[in-house]
Amino acid sequence: MGQITDTNASWIAQQLPALGIDLFWVSGVGDNEPRLTEVLRRAFDRSDLVICTGGLGPTEDDVTRECIAAMLGEDIVPSAELEATLRAYFAGRGAEMPRRNLRQATLTASTEALPNPLGTAPGWWSERAGHVLVAMPGVPHEMHRMWEMEVVPRLRRRLGGDVIYSRILKVVGWGESAVEERIRHLIGGTNPTVGTYAKDDGIHLRLTAKCPTLEEARRLVDALDQRMRDELGNNIYGVDAERMEGVVGRLLREQGLTVAVMESCTGGLLTSTLTDQPGSSAYVRGGVVSYATEVKAELGVPLEVLRQHGAVSPETALAMASAARRQLGASVGLAVTGVAGPEEQEGKPVGTLHIATDVQGRLAATSQQTRGTREVIKRRATLAAMDFLRRQL
Amino acid sequence: MGQITDTNASWIAQQLPALGIDLFWVSGVGDNEPRLTEVLRRAFDRSDLVICTGGLGPTEDDVTRECIAAMLGEDIVPSAELEATLRAYFAGRGAEMPRRNLRQATLTASTEALPNPLGTAPGWWSERAGHVLVAMPGVPHEMHRMWEMEVVPRLRRRLGGDVIYSRILKVVGWGESAVEERIRHLIGGTNPTVGTYAKDDGIHLRLTAKCPTLEEARRLVDALDQRMRDELGNNIYGVDAERMEGVVGRLLREQGLTVAVMESCTGGLLTSTLTDQPGSSAYVRGGVVSYATEVKAELGVPLEVLRQHGAVSPETALAMASAARRQLGASVGLAVTGVAGPEEQEGKPVGTLHIATDVQGRLAATSQQTRGTREVIKRRATLAAMDFLRRQL
Repeated sequence: MGQITDTNASWIAQQLPALGIDLFWVSGVGDNEPRLTEVLRRAFDRSDLVICTGGLGPTEDDVTRECIAAMLGEDIVPSAELEATLRAYFAGRGAEMPRRNLRQATLTASTEALPNPLGTAPGWWSERAGHVLVAMPGVPHEMHRMWEMEVVPRLRRRLGGDVIYSRILKVVGWGESAVEERIRHLIGGTNPTVGTYAKDDGIHLRLTAKCPTLEEARRLVDALDQRMRDELGNNIYGVDAERMEGVVGRLLREQGLTVAVMESCTGGLLTSTLTDQPGSSAYVRGGVVSYATEVKAELGVPLEVLRQHGAVSPETALAMASAARRQLGASVGLAVTGVAGPEEQEGKPVGTLHIATDVQGRLAATSQQTRGTREVIKRRATLAAMDFLRRQL
Repeated sequence: MGQITDTNASWIAQQLPALGIDLFWVSGVGDNEPRLTEVLRRAFDRSDLVICTGGLGPTEDDVTRECIAAMLGEDIVPSAELEATLRAYFAGRGAEMPRRNLRQATLTASTEALPNPLGTAPGWWSERAGHVLVAMPGVPHEMHRMWEMEVVPRLRRRLGGDVIYSRILKVVGWGESAVEERIRHLIGGTNPTVGTYAKDDGIHLRLTAKCPTLEEARRLVDALDQRMRDELGNNIYGVDAERMEGVVGRLLREQGLTVAVMESCTGGLLTSTLTDQPGSSAYVRGGVVSYATEVKAELGVPLEVLRQHGAVSPETALAMASAARRQLGASVGLAVTGVAGPEEQEGKPVGTLHIATDVQGRLAATSQQTRGTREVIKRRATLAAMDFLRRQL
């Protein structure tokens, strides 16, 4: 019925390049035994590896186990070992195991169970004539853990002795083609390989090496990482799971600083993003959304500056940063003003941005022109403001 | 490579129930001619209707047209009419049409073009032996328009004289099972039908009727809509595309009021969401994110209240609403304080929420306990705060 968008398929697709596995087909099918069995049979025939998620629950509408058994032509048999694990799982939560969960303590002759400490559905790893089918729970966090802890090690063993090591560098300040232009001579190698991806939080560069040992793979990636940094410098702001709000938060903590925000066109999104970081209450004093021009004045932006330069100006951004710092008693003030649209303001076009910081009295400002819908502009302005503060710190 | 999650499939899946079309299979495949042709052939053989998106661009890697032609066993022929339309599209943008775009001005013998005023790729509607294949561009906004303006009318004509009319009622304040409990006796009919969906902005009820005329269908939906309102009352906050920030904005405008926010656990998300509404600068004065307790005091929350009741309390929420209203010169103050986690605060558990409003001096407050990750709690607190203001207005 379309209520659920399948994000498991794209998550798994992202994991495959690092293993050197090519993805050819994605299939979606309902909990219907004949249709699901047919889809599984075709997949198992045409592919070395079939990965499926979902349909391993305890209720009658979960039929993936039955369809895999039908596809393999094998019987489903109870497993005393799985039943014991499942009973322990329920006991650990102070509950009796419902009878229907016995359906989850079963296997077939060609099937090995994959442990799932986060839920009741073990995975299934089925092998036949060199083809492998892996069935995992559909709940994303259960599936992610099972993939990393159980499936990837088994796949690595099958793929031979080589180890794959991969690192993501996050780049901000330039678009995808500008980044590719700068690193053109570093792309195109086969080991390590480089993939570039445009994301909401900048351009991601994925460096991947495949070697007999982890140490060698890491050394290849380290060397390429260094050459990327020579080209892109401080535009590389983070590695792997690091987020911009986490990087800014770390810099503030390291320097013993606190921050206060005054924002207009971002409407609260800048402060909200800074506080998405767990533990941010240690350094975020708070923020002010000065949406109306008079509110800027009431909160400490000199009327003179507003009258002379307008609400959307570098001068006002600077005055906002200082007002935020002073009013909220922080060591750092961060401000953004601009035009989010859909209409222009003070004759300034949609996408105009002015960003300023006041770091213990040291003032700095930058201006940018961006494009997009209201939501896109809010998001880009938020990233640009955090990035400007990062550079000042 | 998994950089893109397919949201087109779930969007289309959501449109099909209202047309009475059952969805059996979803397939994903890369821009590879043999594999794509094979997937299209199987789909066309087994289904009355095949809907595909993507691969209609002007470059060499866009091969959907070639694969459809191969599947039908037909030649691709240039269309002078499509070429004229395409040249007019580029001329309207003051640009010359690149030669490669000629690939988009083609058809086959069994194929009719579907206009696309938003882009360069016309859709393809191909019919053979009672089976239909519809190919649309992958860019979501181009696809959505083509679906609504071109595909749905053609499908309706094929499906017979009946007209389908559908309406979504958005419900807040109760969970999905509580809502279903209340309207159990109204669900299960065949005309109109009712679907319930749990969404980020509450529970959606989709009422759908199928009748010989639009008037009759609308009358059936109107009658059921009224019975839903008898059961759910003011918990129904919006219809179809209406969003909570739009409903609150409309109420404020109608009553000539302006609003100012003071928020802590939502960290700016409440003000940001209110300002997502285009035109919100007419009634949103601004907001204060009083993340640190001392900031609450600096911005007008009496120290006495904070000392006696703590930062997370109904009393502080009320004082925050009044301080926001007074400090930012608004007619309405809206406040939320609570614990977003991951750690408890002042001995109050994660998920504690206190919301308050000050509507021209009239004070009101409510408290809730919710669950989830930091992000989920921020989002739920934001929805709950906007909903409480809606009820006060």
